[in-house]
Amino acid sequence: MNEFPSGRPLDLAPFIDHTLLKAAAVETDIRRLCDEARAFGFAAVCVNPLFVRAAKRFLGGSGVKTASVVGFPLGASTAEVKVFETRRAVGDGADEIDAVISLAAAKEHRYGDIAAETAAVVEAAGKDVPVKVILEMCELSEEEKPAVCRAALEGGAAFLKTSTGFGRGGARAEDVRLMAALCREYGGERLPQVKAAGGIRTREEALRMIAAGASRIGTSAGTVICAPQPETRS
Amino acid sequence: MNEFPSGRPLDLAPFIDHTLLKAAAVETDIRRLCDEARAFGFAAVCVNPLFVRAAKRFLGGSGVKTASVVGFPLGASTAEVKVFETRRAVGDGADEIDAVISLAAAKEHRYGDIAAETAAVVEAAGKDVPVKVILEMCELSEEEKPAVCRAALEGGAAFLKTSTGFGRGGARAEDVRLMAALCREYGGERLPQVKAAGGIRTREEALRMIAAGASRIGTSAGTVICAPQPETRS
Repeated sequence: MNEFPSGRPLDLAPFIDHTLLKAAAVETDIRRLCDEARAFGFAAVCVNPLFVRAAKRFLGGSGVKTASVVGFPLGASTAEVKVFETRRAVGDGADEIDAVISLAAAKEHRYGDIAAETAAVVEAAGKDVPVKVILEMCELSEEEKPAVCRAALEGGAAFLKTSTGFGRGGARAEDVRLMAALCREYGGERLPQVKAAGGIRTREEALRMIAAGASRIGTSAGTVICAPQPETRS
Repeated sequence: MNEFPSGRPLDLAPFIDHTLLKAAAVETDIRRLCDEARAFGFAAVCVNPLFVRAAKRFLGGSGVKTASVVGFPLGASTAEVKVFETRRAVGDGADEIDAVISLAAAKEHRYGDIAAETAAVVEAAGKDVPVKVILEMCELSEEEKPAVCRAALEGGAAFLKTSTGFGRGGARAEDVRLMAALCREYGGERLPQVKAAGGIRTREEALRMIAAGASRIGTSAGTVICAPQPETRS
């Protein structure tokens, strides 16, 4: 279980975006999510726009960030609406934005439109609010994947994020590897990162994504993934 | 097969909202949708906001309406964003709006908030653009269902719509019956109607929904449902 040279199991909590995006979630669910995030020391909670204010309040003083999704999960609202939604989420206190690209633009190979939409959302978020661009990789061909990643990086993405978790497929290590390589190649001094999300339920899967190059893990199973390890429980 | 007293099979085309809401749909898919809607004489096409302009263009002169979804499919954007999205969709040419309620408000029994959000969207749509309020009935308890329906009617819904088609369950005849009864009881002179959507794939299912009180059927199987009947094909 000594996964890293330090000889101690890696603490995954700072990698976790603790996520609850179900349509029927209520404020008491968000409170539990925030209490868990605070107790475990997760990076952020990731919630629907409706709950940004509540999450921000529940997390007060914890250091845990509040991330809001935008254009979620279909990415099929107009760029103008995504910009408005981003502004309002930041106004409500969002520290980070997870925005879905237009998959129509991706499938029609209008990569310039993806860069432009990303840039518009990044501008609306402002310089203190990183934008994670969700690419829904399961819908993209092997040719489209690098082109869409590059477009999102050109637009100023702080993170490339694999999946919404609502699509036909979730995070895959090979996609994470590709995204991390493109971040290094085209990200410049901004040092963009990769968020793996969708279907990650265990510590092993999370470690696989991190080994592939992810620095954030979007999951609703953070408390399971970060449960005390046998040798540290003693 | 003589379903109605006239002795001829009922023409279902005027009941159909021909629907394509997949994240990865592209403009050529929307063109085919619109061509089919025009050929069959469907009531409307139902598309994501991104495609309202294109659908409107493809449908020019056909009499088929263009319906845009709003806050779709989770209903978890804020009321303010739904209002903005509605305005822009109408600005882009939408003739009808299919808007998802806040399921959080429903599950927290904040029915006044549902009425207020509905009223805000109805006002943003304007008096010539009917608003179909999507209630995602599969997420509601038997107690919540009538309360949420009443709230949407109070808010000025032109239609109560059963489901997004992205949830755990779709249209059920007993829900349609309940909604139709509440429309009669609380809808007043506006004569609100019921749209059944979600999982309706056959003529038999569509007829069952219509018999239960639906006057619109949201489906991606409209061309199958309305294929020429054996006795009319001869």
